[in-house]
Amino acid sequence: MTPVTVLGLGPMGRALAAAFAAAGHPTTVWNRTPGKAAGLDVAVAGTAAAAIAASPLVVVCVRDHAAARSVLDVGVPAGRTLVDFTGGSPAQARAMAAWAGERGVDHLDGVVVATPEAVGGPGAVLFYSGPGGVYEAHRSTLAALGGNATYLGEDPGRAAAFDASLQDLFWTAMSGVVHMFALAGAEGIGAVEVAGHAKAVLGFFPDLVDQVAGQVAAGSFPGADATIGSVAGVLDTILGTVRAHGLDNGVLTAVRAEVGRAVEAGYGAEGFGRLAAPRS
Amino acid sequence: MTPVTVLGLGPMGRALAAAFAAAGHPTTVWNRTPGKAAGLDVAVAGTAAAAIAASPLVVVCVRDHAAARSVLDVGVPAGRTLVDFTGGSPAQARAMAAWAGERGVDHLDGVVVATPEAVGGPGAVLFYSGPGGVYEAHRSTLAALGGNATYLGEDPGRAAAFDASLQDLFWTAMSGVVHMFALAGAEGIGAVEVAGHAKAVLGFFPDLVDQVAGQVAAGSFPGADATIGSVAGVLDTILGTVRAHGLDNGVLTAVRAEVGRAVEAGYGAEGFGRLAAPRS
Repeated sequence: MTPVTVLGLGPMGRALAAAFAAAGHPTTVWNRTPGKAAGLDVAVAGTAAAAIAASPLVVVCVRDHAAARSVLDVGVPAGRTLVDFTGGSPAQARAMAAWAGERGVDHLDGVVVATPEAVGGPGAVLFYSGPGGVYEAHRSTLAALGGNATYLGEDPGRAAAFDASLQDLFWTAMSGVVHMFALAGAEGIGAVEVAGHAKAVLGFFPDLVDQVAGQVAAGSFPGADATIGSVAGVLDTILGTVRAHGLDNGVLTAVRAEVGRAVEAGYGAEGFGRLAAPRS
Repeated sequence: MTPVTVLGLGPMGRALAAAFAAAGHPTTVWNRTPGKAAGLDVAVAGTAAAAIAASPLVVVCVRDHAAARSVLDVGVPAGRTLVDFTGGSPAQARAMAAWAGERGVDHLDGVVVATPEAVGGPGAVLFYSGPGGVYEAHRSTLAALGGNATYLGEDPGRAAAFDASLQDLFWTAMSGVVHMFALAGAEGIGAVEVAGHAKAVLGFFPDLVDQVAGQVAAGSFPGADATIGSVAGVLDTILGTVRAHGLDNGVLTAVRAEVGRAVEAGYGAEGFGRLAAPRS
């Protein structure tokens, strides 16, 4: 079993270390502030350098890339493999890959699309990007972290790019969820009562995602059932009610503004999927 | 079979008339501009007044409530039942109910949560609100319009309030879908490739909707896995990438601004569901 080092013991770092240890990998950990390894079946290193020296595979999961760089600046010997689960942008992942490359260190960027509680389980989704050979060399070790790992390609920024795109969807849709409850509540509709209908509405989305994906791939956005122009009218009606209740309307107002810009640009008769495409 | 009149033959009005006729109801139609009834198995009235006179149940489905009022101002005899499928706000539905009440006309507000093509089919979802006795009296006739009808309550604005809440969710989430594809595309990720992962992300939403509904009902918003404060950081990272690509960022910027206001108001350690609740 390959020895593994985990740098950073926040909730996600702890979960990664616990999963490696549970899979039988000799696991060494380090955290800037001590005492975070309590309850883990791991070796605790006194310094980051000692932790890095302990294992050929070094996982880093800290607050941000500035913190990651400061931890790793103690020196990572050439020939080590660095797997970086520190959240960040595609550009930051590419910069870290370049930093590693200058030092002869192999590098993968990783994203955990799961809660810490789910890490190590069969359903935990993980994304990786970086050199395919490096991923293949460590694939079986990384499998300890979850049963649903996807290698996305050589570009070290690709895992973070997938993550950013999906987080954009996730938090925008979550914004829709909370505003739905806020508006329903202002109209005297109970949260549990509207929730059932909301789940029915969300049930349309897998098909809608495929439909928009096909339109983007084809570069054609037919507005059959709902044109961008008709959506503008629907949004105006909703906004009137939202504003009448004094509810937060910033997000819906921004959707309406984007729709308005598309209408002004001449796309009013096309479908909503048009907003996914670069303006031409 | 109860005779039915349909006023307004846009795509949805046509679909309603076709569904009544297909179910065997003697159906009379009228539209402001003639020639829209071609292909329908209906009687075409020469005036709105003649159409209204033809049936005890009068369905109106026109562009907006101003148009509905102008059509109905020719006079609706007391004792008629008016079912208004004209899209609008809860306040507009309540105003129409009051207008009808002053004239001794029974009134239901209706919302079709389906495309015109789906109307009349087993899966077409329809919402109704208004007096329960009026709904019960016409329930079997209205069943011609679709197999999934829900009566939401006596408040005539309730169907429109459900609709507005669900449309808020729908269009905000659709905005997330198109922005996900836009960001993925800017990062060189194919639409079909990211779509599969997007559907997995959306698969979390039924549980998330139930979770937030339970939090709203309980008035408690624990921030276990993701606090509002941590979401702020995630959104900043995504926004950095979105802006670096010059993509439309109005919606995500508005989500970030709302999150920032919640942090300033002292809710940074609570869960995202807190945004569904009135600020206290």
